Amino acid sequence: MAHIADSAARLEGEHLLAALRWRAAVKRFDPTRRIPAKTWETLEQALSLSPSSYGLQPWRFLVVEDKALRQKLQAASWGQAQIVDADKLVVFAARRPFGAEDVERHIARMAEVRKVSPSALEGAKKAMLGVLGRPPAALESWVARQVYIALGTFLTSAAVLGIDACPMEGIEPAKYDEILGLTAKGYSALCVAAAGYRSADDVWSASAKVRFPVDQVVERL
Amino acid sequence: MAHIADSAARLEGEHLLAALRWRAAVKRFDPTRRIPAKTWETLEQALSLSPSSYGLQPWRFLVVEDKALRQKLQAASWGQAQIVDADKLVVFAARRPFGAEDVERHIARMAEVRKVSPSALEGAKKAMLGVLGRPPAALESWVARQVYIALGTFLTSAAVLGIDACPMEGIEPAKYDEILGLTAKGYSALCVAAAGYRSADDVWSASAKVRFPVDQVVERL
Repeated sequence: MAHIADSAARLEGEHLLAALRWRAAVKRFDPTRRIPAKTWETLEQALSLSPSSYGLQPWRFLVVEDKALRQKLQAASWGQAQIVDADKLVVFAARRPFGAEDVERHIARMAEVRKVSPSALEGAKKAMLGVLGRPPAALESWVARQVYIALGTFLTSAAVLGIDACPMEGIEPAKYDEILGLTAKGYSALCVAAAGYRSADDVWSASAKVRFPVDQVVERL
Repeated sequence: MAHIADSAARLEGEHLLAALRWRAAVKRFDPTRRIPAKTWETLEQALSLSPSSYGLQPWRFLVVEDKALRQKLQAASWGQAQIVDADKLVVFAARRPFGAEDVERHIARMAEVRKVSPSALEGAKKAMLGVLGRPPAALESWVARQVYIALGTFLTSAAVLGIDACPMEGIEPAKYDEILGLTAKGYSALCVAAAGYRSADDVWSASAKVRFPVDQVVERL
């Protein structure tokens, strides 16, 4: 594969930082603006390309457009307006419980994509099955962390494409699971991200970004 | 702030996807190649700009360059070569325990940056203090998830800049905490990312990326 460092696809550092400084947890979205279909497909692809431990992808992303469904979810999200006003709503769901069959599924996919025999992947499979040795709560926490890598990937990807997003943990996961039928599918909602375009009167994104000075969070040793 | 959607800073969707497809968990780094200082500063800035719940930034990022220290960490990382071979090693550490003083510190910073009285931020502070109501294990898990948003931000940022990175959970956190003196500082290592440039003989990044088809991980409702 061509080295991206040599290609035109690289983003200049100043542009990356401009995007990350521009992004904000937008609360008030412009309910009339739609994300172009091609841009949204790009963000779905970005989600699917997100890194995860061993590449296990222990997640599912539900893109909710249906307005009636969005209203039900809003009632399970402390009534927050962005749940219905943003063009898109992505529910980040974790595989629960994560089990041996998830490892098997990934190994089968790996064999398919790389055109190798599953038996040649026994070593990799054994290593992956090792994650299941954790106590249930630790395993659940580990899966959740993977989903949050995808959240970070999504928010950064949206920012560099000029799409606004609002990550939200203030939801009632059990109600989401029921409304979306997630439990029966073996998944559980962790958080959501509304996506679209900020309204001109969104005061949150108009406020100065608050971060600790870099030398207080990054330590060089 | 200018709308990035109108600026030259946007990345085209195809370029974002090219970067995300190019990135891989590189295991073999070229030990002779250094990331330009300006590019690395950009990545440190990107880390500091990462989103987190309420913007609380319950983290610290340790950039380890010292080779002797790297060797000690390698012994606490199952001997993995990228710990010492990559140009940089970032340790992602979570605030532990996360407490009321961390909320106070963020509120103070918010007052400073936005030039408002801390008393005007009492409502925000009260909401933020709400996160402390969780049981200790749930609070710890919540803090870890925030750190993983930063991991996703870092990996995506590195990819669009053409910098290789290898996220790694295979470390012994307790030993990292001891070697880096993190416990005394109130932080705990969760994972690391080696960063630099892939070696020409890195077989992992040369292999086809394995992902489930998008329609198996993204569901439109």
